[in-house]
Order: sequence, then structure tokens, then C-alpha cells
Amino acid sequence: MPNSTTEVSVSVPLLSSLRPATNSSSQVAIVGSNVCPIESLDYEIAENDFFKQDWRARSKVQIFQYVFMKWMLCFFIGIIVSLIGFTNNLAVENLAGVKFVITSNMMLAGRFTMGFLVFTVTNLVLTLFASAITAFVAPAAAGSGIPEVKAYLNGVDAPEIFSFRTLLVKIVGNISAVSGSLLIGKAGPMVHTGACVASILGQGGSKRYGLTWRWLRYFNNDRDRRDLVTCGSAAGIAASFRAPVGGVLFALEEMSSWWRSALLWRIFFSTAVVAIVLRALIDVCLSGKCGLFGKGGLIMFDVYSEDSSYHLGDVLSVLLLGVVGGILGSFYNFLLEKVLRAYNFIYEKGVAWKIVLACAISIFTSCLLFGLPFLAPCQPCPVGALEQCPTIGRSGNFKKYQCPPGHYNDLASLIFNTNDDAIKNLFSKNTDFEFHYLSVLVFFVTCFFLSILSYGIVAPAGLFVPVIVTGASYGRFVGMLLGSNSNLNHGLFAVLGAASFLGGSMRMTVSLCVILLELTNNLLLLPMMMLVLLISKTVADAFNANIYNLIMKIKGFPYLFNHVEPYMRQLTVGDVVTGPLQVFNGIEKVETIVHVLKSTNHNGFPVVDGPPHAAAPVLHGLILRAHILTLLKKRVFLSSPVAFDSKALALFKADEFAKKGSGRGDRIEDVELSEEELNMYLDLHPFSNASPYTVLETMSLAKALVLFREVGLRHLLVTPKTSDRPPLVGILTRHDFMPEHILGLRPSLSRSRWKRLRIRLPFLAYID
Amino acid sequence: MPNSTTEVSVSVPLLSSLRPATNSSSQVAIVGSNVCPIESLDYEIAENDFFKQDWRARSKVQIFQYVFMKWMLCFFIGIIVSLIGFTNNLAVENLAGVKFVITSNMMLAGRFTMGFLVFTVTNLVLTLFASAITAFVAPAAAGSGIPEVKAYLNGVDAPEIFSFRTLLVKIVGNISAVSGSLLIGKAGPMVHTGACVASILGQGGSKRYGLTWRWLRYFNNDRDRRDLVTCGSAAGIAASFRAPVGGVLFALEEMSSWWRSALLWRIFFSTAVVAIVLRALIDVCLSGKCGLFGKGGLIMFDVYSEDSSYHLGDVLSVLLLGVVGGILGSFYNFLLEKVLRAYNFIYEKGVAWKIVLACAISIFTSCLLFGLPFLAPCQPCPVGALEQCPTIGRSGNFKKYQCPPGHYNDLASLIFNTNDDAIKNLFSKNTDFEFHYLSVLVFFVTCFFLSILSYGIVAPAGLFVPVIVTGASYGRFVGMLLGSNSNLNHGLFAVLGAASFLGGSMRMTVSLCVILLELTNNLLLLPMMMLVLLISKTVADAFNANIYNLIMKIKGFPYLFNHVEPYMRQLTVGDVVTGPLQVFNGIEKVETIVHVLKSTNHNGFPVVDGPPHAAAPVLHGLILRAHILTLLKKRVFLSSPVAFDSKALALFKADEFAKKGSGRGDRIEDVELSEEELNMYLDLHPFSNASPYTVLETMSLAKALVLFREVGLRHLLVTPKTSDRPPLVGILTRHDFMPEHILGLRPSLSRSRWKRLRIRLPFLAYID
Repeated sequence: MPNSTTEVSVSVPLLSSLRPATNSSSQVAIVGSNVCPIESLDYEIAENDFFKQDWRARSKVQIFQYVFMKWMLCFFIGIIVSLIGFTNNLAVENLAGVKFVITSNMMLAGRFTMGFLVFTVTNLVLTLFASAITAFVAPAAAGSGIPEVKAYLNGVDAPEIFSFRTLLVKIVGNISAVSGSLLIGKAGPMVHTGACVASILGQGGSKRYGLTWRWLRYFNNDRDRRDLVTCGSAAGIAASFRAPVGGVLFALEEMSSWWRSALLWRIFFSTAVVAIVLRALIDVCLSGKCGLFGKGGLIMFDVYSEDSSYHLGDVLSVLLLGVVGGILGSFYNFLLEKVLRAYNFIYEKGVAWKIVLACAISIFTSCLLFGLPFLAPCQPCPVGALEQCPTIGRSGNFKKYQCPPGHYNDLASLIFNTNDDAIKNLFSKNTDFEFHYLSVLVFFVTCFFLSILSYGIVAPAGLFVPVIVTGASYGRFVGMLLGSNSNLNHGLFAVLGAASFLGGSMRMTVSLCVILLELTNNLLLLPMMMLVLLISKTVADAFNANIYNLIMKIKGFPYLFNHVEPYMRQLTVGDVVTGPLQVFNGIEKVETIVHVLKSTNHNGFPVVDGPPHAAAPVLHGLILRAHILTLLKKRVFLSSPVAFDSKALALFKADEFAKKGSGRGDRIEDVELSEEELNMYLDLHPFSNASPYTVLETMSLAKALVLFREVGLRHLLVTPKTSDRPPLVGILTRHDFMPEHILGLRPSLSRSRWKRLRIRLPFLAYID
Repeated sequence: MPNSTTEVSVSVPLLSSLRPATNSSSQVAIVGSNVCPIESLDYEIAENDFFKQDWRARSKVQIFQYVFMKWMLCFFIGIIVSLIGFTNNLAVENLAGVKFVITSNMMLAGRFTMGFLVFTVTNLVLTLFASAITAFVAPAAAGSGIPEVKAYLNGVDAPEIFSFRTLLVKIVGNISAVSGSLLIGKAGPMVHTGACVASILGQGGSKRYGLTWRWLRYFNNDRDRRDLVTCGSAAGIAASFRAPVGGVLFALEEMSSWWRSALLWRIFFSTAVVAIVLRALIDVCLSGKCGLFGKGGLIMFDVYSEDSSYHLGDVLSVLLLGVVGGILGSFYNFLLEKVLRAYNFIYEKGVAWKIVLACAISIFTSCLLFGLPFLAPCQPCPVGALEQCPTIGRSGNFKKYQCPPGHYNDLASLIFNTNDDAIKNLFSKNTDFEFHYLSVLVFFVTCFFLSILSYGIVAPAGLFVPVIVTGASYGRFVGMLLGSNSNLNHGLFAVLGAASFLGGSMRMTVSLCVILLELTNNLLLLPMMMLVLLISKTVADAFNANIYNLIMKIKGFPYLFNHVEPYMRQLTVGDVVTGPLQVFNGIEKVETIVHVLKSTNHNGFPVVDGPPHAAAPVLHGLILRAHILTLLKKRVFLSSPVAFDSKALALFKADEFAKKGSGRGDRIEDVELSEEELNMYLDLHPFSNASPYTVLETMSLAKALVLFREVGLRHLLVTPKTSDRPPLVGILTRHDFMPEHILGLRPSLSRSRWKRLRIRLPFLAYID
């Protein structure tokens, strides 16, 4: 059935109605430097007669099974993610701790060259290991993983992101890379890990290893997996920052594209489990059984002060902090995007280059971390310090480094330390005179650029901790500059600086606020924190997008934003829908089906009843490619074009139509049929979704996008306005809503004032 | 055009396809005891040619105006709501404080009868005033207002809920009723107040008093008002509990039916403003200028303890607390529903009865509050108490009451006090031996029943504080019973008991958790709090619904839940859509329009182009009653049936089509047209929404409901499956999705197993 394209819109035509005949948008996007096929997910319930019959047959016990298992899965996600999070921290603290202790001991003995060599070689080996397993075993584990999970929750299924291999590499690689003193974080990879765990649990274990359970069969669909993955990502944040409420809000504000209250309670349950398990594990560690993990462990930055005194007068310095933090944050995003594009260019040359780059950055980092403190002047130990000064033999506040006895190197306390300890030092109060302002400045500049260079390497690397450490040093520096003009202590400035830099680069508000409150354990900071986050986000939004959205764009994910471009209001869906359209008859010859499946890569086909079965062509519904493949593999064919009887239908089981795990779908090439079978028929009626969402071709693109996104569709059928035409104009998919696709079809729009309206005013992104 | 109803569904018919000819659902619902018309709200963007032209003409400056004003409105909502909240607290503390001081002084002088009289008469006068202004001036201000606001955000516009009168009565009446020692709260009314303020600001001030501003004209639509009202309700909670993050989460979890990230930031901004303003005002009060408001004021229950030590072993007692709290909470809901239904029955007899009931409850409350402490034995003052014991002349912990010197009455400390002080006493730590367990039990029972009796009176009355105080006494009582079997102190038990009772009756999780954390200012409680809330909510959900949902049901609001009833999957929209359908031609005679508007009460009419303007009837779009009325009032008619030319269109202004405030819409009865005008024509094309959402008649009801709710529609057009029929089968509105309506149309469903499946299993409400 050819696509009918000459209908003139009834309304005043804004644009010429010439339509290109083929879809120029590509289903292929660039992931990293590899060209990979990206699948869309389908959150619509396929309501075909066969499934309806299955639902009717479901007993109360089965409904109970479903609900019970969904809660149990949330419980297990909480348990597993918290255990992984704890192990991560334990491993990093011990690996990096041993390394720092050995190096420090060598330096105490005056063997600086040897110390440098041990430090650099250890880091190099750890980085080499992390980047090698990432590059060769699971390239999808590189980076933070938050953009991938965010895209997944929007309906974009990048290959391999939730495989078991990716999970393993993500955990081991991240421990190794963070222990190797690279300026990268653990939180992003924990989010990805949590999502992985959730997805693997939801798929009912691994079929490859025979680990499946019948009770889990109900979760083999995209809707339930989406819920579980949202749960997993919240548990990931909860486990990395011990911030259960922050985790829930993070999943809500940043990750998810769809939300409902029932999901809120499930996620809250998962993060509650995380919080309780972590509390129990820390009880164990408090008795000193966790090596160098120590007492502080997971409440990283406890800055509670009985009366953190601040008044309305301090609002001005907070405003300043927010504005500058916003500008710095968006500059950070800008630089990071450029660096990532440059890295992608290098990575196209081969895997070896990826590893070479990682090693080069490791060596560069080691040199900076080891060398810079030598430039700092030694400070005399403060009189009456609570801690031993200088600290010897363990990671502490007052590093001796090259200094004479009775002195400490303040820059080394920050830079020659794990990131967590550096943040703890920066956040702590009553340390206003411990650091020289030049040391803090040097530290800030180092972190700023080093973290931008480090993020893009082929290893699991997060952004949260680098941004926090950079922001904290920036905040403390501002606090030092203001000096006695402000009543706030420098630790508070560091916390607010971290908030402003996070707000400027990640652009979250509520979730960052709660995460920082849970981290610092000081609720009295709340109003200041809210203010600084809102200001820095607003300022930064005037320049560029959220860091994760930038990375998603580089990776080429077709993410559907809920922001409607102005020109979409002026276009109708008829203007963008493209052909040629492939439809099936209700009872179709097997040969035709196989031919169509082989010659197209569409994932859904409209089923139309034409003569002689109906007077005029009538749209029956939409059948999914996966379901047709299941039918073909089952080989229950009809010798004549009649409907399936109930005996034939009884041969099918609902489980067989369950959605396969990512990348494990059937392929038409694997189905081999005999000549005889090809001449038989299939009745598609009972297996097609008889309630597909439809829009009239004159519907504006903006409103169709609202429907598509809010309901979470993969296919949206376009029906004609007049009744004298075939019952279907075309099918809209995710790609048809992408600005690139639309502007490609209508180049004139790029030059029109609708395009020009898109320049970024501050706040403009908030319109609808 | 008659409704075509005989089409037989293509799929296996589950139900007979006989359809009643008329819509039996009523657009009238019972509000309180009055029969009032309830309007639906419309969140769809009416994309007609006229508006599109207006959008195209908007300049960047106007877009900036819109965005800037929306943020400014959020700012003003924050400022105004926090000022009202502060005033509320100040007034209540001073009014009730003076009353308690005077009564206590009389009792110190031994004049018990006089004290009783003063106490009772003061309370009676305050209650009488509150109930009289509510009953006569603004009946919509009665109760907590949360159900009304929640229904509004779902799209149900009850009359007068956001009028200026209601706002005034809500504030004054609540201050008066709470000061009158009734066991009611301030938080619910604050939510309603916040929503009122937001709605009034969004309507651009009051036209009646000439207070309007051109910049505010863009907010005259339901979408922007919905956003602002959400903001206002969050600000209300933030102001009553000084819980800015809790307010955001409350709006998200309990109030709103639609959500997007941009809204999150705006709401967060409003509550941040609230937090900062309250902080500043409390700074002022700390210097002692606020009378009896005192130092504690708004951080009601500060129970921070340096190390609130609890371990995994305490989880068992928390489990117990949660389970019993859930059962108690659902029992509370059950009783409250019964009492409200009984009150409604009494209220039907007339306004006088409402006031009599309020006065009776006030006298009963006074008797209980004054009388019960006499039953409690006097306790000797503890040695080394930090406070003066017994307290004389001010509201304090150790009430002397009738006791001899050196003794105090522990029940009086709880019961003969403001609710806020009672909660503070219950939550405080290191008071394990201050209260006798019988006193706490008596207090619990009194609060439980008194709050159920008090809520339904005709005065602004909240539920949060009564539930917290009841739950806190329950928790403390459990803590006393467990005694040395638990390591937790009784103050902690009171906090967890309040959480469990809140969870059992209000069924929120994340928001209650954060509100309680912000109230008690103790983040270390987090994991316990999460656990107890989840358990009590789960247990209570097995018995009945959320208290607000029960109240909404009593009030008859057609609230659309996002829970799909099982039988909705088996019905198609064709099965429930009812006629007769009224359609207009694209160019219609004025007389016909007036006649149709007068004879029906539909709010939207499909516009169909028939011969001779089109070959076959074609659906052009949907025109709203309000827009037709504007057209009629404008009296720009055509002498012959032709389209409007651009000169005629230039006579209309977009502002004229803006949505009027609630209850202020035009009525067809007010439009008077001459005979000549009635014979002229109107071109409806440019004013009809050419992109209405449509579904095929074979779409399942469940999926149509998803579309209806997620996109926020008022009208959903149903198109026929086959092309040989008129272009429209009918229109679905909110009422067509109500279970009562569907079961009324299909009585057989009530008896079918689809209905039976609806029995409440625990967790079952969570299925999608």
C-alpha cells in the first residue's frame, strides 16, 4: 500500500506539503566510536486477543506471585547493590590506602625517587588493567553509565549495556581505576551497576547458565524492566552516598522519563533496604575489621555543627558562589564535551590507542599528584591540633611529605590522598587556617582539568566525586578570598561550593540538595543549599545543557525530551511521516511475511483486513516483528486462508511471546522454512495489538509528541482524515520526532524564524 | 448525527454490544451536603488556527515575560504563603497561650470552677466564630482542603474552592478553631491556603477589584494554573512544618496527578523562598518580640541527639510498631469515614445544625481536656530537672494543675496544652520517667476519638497534627510497654509511632519520611523511619484507602486514578461511549448554535465539515463551549455561509478566549441576540482545536484511560473503525471512565469475575 501524501492540510498551510518519499533518518547511531544498532523499547501493552485470553486465565495466585515477586526483586536489588557498594568502598580504601602508606613510608625514609616510581607504576598497572578489561571484554562498561541508563529509561536500548559481562567489568574496572588515583568517581558506575543488577534479576537470571525461575516469567516485558532499572539506579546512588532519599529523588529527577506513585514506593523500599544493610555493615566495620576502611567509611563528610550560624546577611556571598559556580559548571561541561569529541576521534584509530591514552593520563596524573606538593611551602604544625602532626604511616590530615619535623605540607593533604579524604578535609570545619589559599587554588585548577581529561578514558569512571572535589576546593577558595567579610566558616563554603558546581554541571536541584544534606548530615544548611543550587543551575542553563544530555548527544542516543520545539506546533504528523509503509493482511501468506521481514527492518507492521474479508480495508491492529518471528518458529501454519480455531490457538503459550533480553531477539535469518510451509497461511489477528494508539494525520507534531512520550510508545499509527483513503497513512517512531530528522526533511525550517526562536534564553528551557 | 451503535467488535466479544442510548452518568456530584455542579479542567492545548496565529506573532519579549512572570509568581507564592504560615502560628500560639496562662493562674489560685468556665467559654466563642464564618461566608473553606486541591490537580474543579472569600475564611477560621483547643491541625488548611494564593495570583489578581496586570494574561489557562496550584500546595506544607524538601515531595507524591521536571524546580524554588523567609522571621522572634510564640516556634520538635544509638536488633520492635500502626491507621480511616457520612446526614437538615454540632463538640472537648487530668495521680517532681517544676504562669512541661507543691500532673502536661507542645513533650528524649504509662494511654485514646469527631465540623480543620499527636502517644505507649526490651528511648518511639500512624492513615512514604526528618531534625533516624512507614502503609493498604481518597469519595469528586480496573481491559471505548452526540458544521447558523448550547450542557462540540463543503463528512476538530460563547458575545457574524476572511479574524483578540476563573465562565442565558443575528452564520474553523486526541472505537478502555489521564484531557474523541460511517462515534469525558458509570451501563460486570478480582489483596493496588 503506497503512502498517500498529497492530502492538503485543511488549516492554513505554513509549509509546502511536498514530502520526500523515503525516510532519511537512520536507525543507526554512533555509540562511542562504534556504529551499533540501537533498539527502541516498547512500553505499550500489546493488547491482542491471545494475551487477553491469557490474562483472563490468570488466577489470583498468579497475580499474587507477580506482585510478591516484584517486591522481592526490589528487596534483592537493595541487598545486592548495597553489598556491591560496600565492597567497592572497602576495596578502594584498602588498595589505595596500602599504596599511599607504602609511598609515604618511603618518603619518610627520604627515598623520594623510589616512592615516585612505586606510586607511578602501581597507578599505571591498575589503570592498564582497568582499561584493558574494559576495552577488550566489555566496551559498554566505559564511562559513568548514567547517560546509558537514562537513555534506557527513555526507551533507547543500547547494545550490551545490561549484560553480565558489563556488570563484572564495571565493578572490577572501577575499583581498579579509582585505586589507581585517577580523578574519577565511583557513584556513576554504581548507578550503572545497580541498573545492571536490576535488569539481570528482572530477566529471570541468565538463560545461558540455566538460572531461571518460573515465577519470574511475568517480568519479561519492557514495562516491568523499566521499573526495576529505575529501582536499581536509585539503589546505586543510595549505596554510593548512603543517601536513600537522595537516591529516590535522583532517579525521579534525573534518570526517569516516566513515573508513577507505585514506583515511588518500590524505589523507596529498595533504598531503605540499602540504608539498613549499609548501617549493619558499618556496625561491623566500627569494630575495626575492615582494614584501612576505618570508621568514617561511608558517611563521607560529616560536617554537623551544633549551631551552624548564618543569617540573612550571608545570602549575598551565597549568591556570588552560585553565580560563579554556575558559570564554572557550564564551562566544565563545554570543555568536557570538546575533550570527549577529541577522544572519540582518537579512539576511531583502534583499541590500542584507547589503552595508550589511558596509560598516558595515568602517568600524567601520577606526576602531578606527586610533583605538585613539592611546590607548596611547608606549614608549621598548629599548636594544640587534635590529630598527630605531621601524620605518619596512615592517611591523615597533616601530611609530612618533604617537610622538616613539626611541619606539614597542606597541598599534599589535599592532593596526595584519596578523593574522599580530600573532600573530607575540605568540608571539615575549624580548619580555616590549616590550608594556604594558594594550595587550595592549585588544587582546584588541577582537579578541574585533570577530571575533564580523565573522564573519557576507556574505564568505568564517574563524574560525581570529581565534580564535588573541584567544587569544594572552589568554594573554599572563595571563602578564603572573602575572609572576614563573611560569617560562614570555610568548611561551609566548601559544601556550598560543591553544591554550586554540581548544580552548574549536573543541573539537578532537589536530588542534589538531599544527597548533599544526607552526605554532610546537616539539615540546617537546607535553605542555603537550595538557594545556591537553584542559582547555579539557572545561570548554567543559559549557556549549555546538562552534562549527561551532552554525553547522550555525543553517543547519538535518540532521546525524547519533553520539551517541544516551537516549529513542531506548526507541523502536522502528516508532514513528517514517511514511507513506504508495509502492511499485512489479517490472514497472510507465509512467503509474503518472510519476504517482508527480510527486506525491511521495521519492528511493527499494521494488520489490515481487506477484501474479501471486509467490505473496505479496515485497520485491525499492529503486530510486532518479535511476535511474527515467534509464530514462524512455532510453524503452526494454515493450509488455507482461514482464521485459527481455538485448538490451534491452544498450541501457543504466552511465555513464548515474552520480550527477549536485550540483544537476544530472534532474527529472521535464523528461521528456515520449507517450500511447502512458505505456501501456507498465518492468521495474524489473535496476535496483533488491536488497541494501538492512533492520531489523525492533521494532528500537530507537538501534540503527537506529548502522546508518544507520556504514554511511552514505540509505534504511533497515523490514520487519514478523509474516509475515501486507505485506513493508514503511516507509522511514527521515535526517530520521526528527532529534530535532526525533521529538519532534514524540511531544511527550510532551519532558516525560518521557528528555528531562530530556539536560541537559549535563561529559563527558556522551562517552557513546557 | 445519531450515534452509530450497532458495530460489532472485530475481536472475540466478551460482552453483549447493546448500548444504552443516553448517558446515565451525572455531571452533578455531592459536595459536602450541597448539590453543586463540578467542572472538569482541560489541560490539552487547544491548537486552533487562531491561537497558532497568535503564537507565531509572539515576540521574544513576550516569551521572556511569560517565563519571568511564572518564576516571579512562584517567588510571590513563597513569600505570601510563608508570611501567612508564620502569622498563623504566631496568632495561635498567642491566643491559645494567653488562654492557658489565664486559666492556669486561676487554678493556681484555687478557683477551679472559674477556670473551667473561662476555658470552656473562650473555646466555645472561638469555635462559634470559626464555624459561623465558615457556614455563612465560605462553606468551601470547611475541612482540610487537601482533598479539594488534590481533586483540582486531577482535573476536577469544585466551585468556590479558590475564591478570595474562601482564602480569608480559611485563614481566620483556622486560627480561631485551633486556638479554641479543638483537636484539629493547621497543615491541611495551610495547603489549601497556599493553593488559593497561587490560584488567585495566577488569575492575575481580582477583576472585581480592578487588580489585574497585562503581564499575567498568559496564565489564564488550566495548565499554568495547575502548575501554580501545585507550587502553592507544596509551599503550604513547607510553611506549616518548615520542611521545604518535604513540601516538594508531598506535592509530588500525594497531590499532583501530572508532573514534569521543570515543575519540580519551580516548586523547589517556592519552598526555598518559604524556608528562607521563615528563617528570617524566626531570627526576629528569637529576640523575644513575638509574645508567647517563644523560641521553639516553628521547628516544632527538635529531637536531635548526638548519637541516637540503635542497631539491627531494634528492627523487631520497629516492625511491631509499623504493623500495629498500620492497623490503627486504617481503623482510624474507617471510623472517620463513618463519622463524616453521619455528619453529612445531620448537615442536610440545615445550617443551624452545623453550628450546633460544632459548639457541642467544642464543649465536649473542653470538658475532656479540663476534666481528665483530675483523674491522673500527681507525680513528684524529678530531682535535678532542668526546667522549673511545677511550671507556673507559662505553658511548660510540668503542669501543676491540682497537685500539691513539688508535684506535677503528667496528663495535664500532655492534654491541657496546645497540640504542638504536646507533640514536643512526647518527642523529647531523656523524659522516659516523666510520664506514667496510664496517662499516655488515656491521652492516646482521647486524641484518637476526639480527632475523629472534630475533623468533620464546619470549620477549617487539618488532619496532620491530630494524626501526629495520636501516633506519638501510641508510639510512646508501645515504648513503655516494651520497657527494657528495647534500647530505643521513648522519644524515639514517639517519633516512630507518629510515622507509623501517619503511614497507616495518609499512606505516603517518601514525603512523610522527609517531613518527619525535617521536623525532628535528625537524619540518623532515616532507615528506621523508612522501614516503619513502608510497613504501616502496606499493612493499612490491605484494609482500605488513603484518608484523602476516602474523603474525596464522600464528596463525590470524579477523581481519575491511574489504577486500571481489570474489567476495563475487556471493554472497548465503543462499549461505554454514549449518545446522543451533538456536532456542528464548520460554518454553522447562529440559531442552531444557540439552540444546541441551550439544550445541552456539553462543554465541547465536534466540528464536522459535510457536503457541500467536503465530499464526505470530515472531522475538522473540537470547539469548546467557552470559545463559542466568546464568539457569540463578540457578535461578528457572517451574512452568508462562507469562511471568515483575515479582516474579520483581526477583530478577535487571543485574550478574549482565555479561560475564565473558576465559576466565572459565561453562560448562554446571558447572550441575547436579535432575530436578524440568529439568521446569520459563524465560521467555527479558525476557533476549533484541529488536533484533538482521538481513539478508535475498538481501543480498549484501559488504554484509553491511560491516554486520558497521562495527557490530561477533558474530551477524547472516538472515531469509527470502518470508513463507511460518520467520522465520529462519540466523545469520552472523565465521567465515562468512572467505575460507577461503567458498572451502571453494564450491571453484569458487577457480578462477573472481573469485578470479583477487585477484592483487596495486600499490595494489589500496586499493579499498574
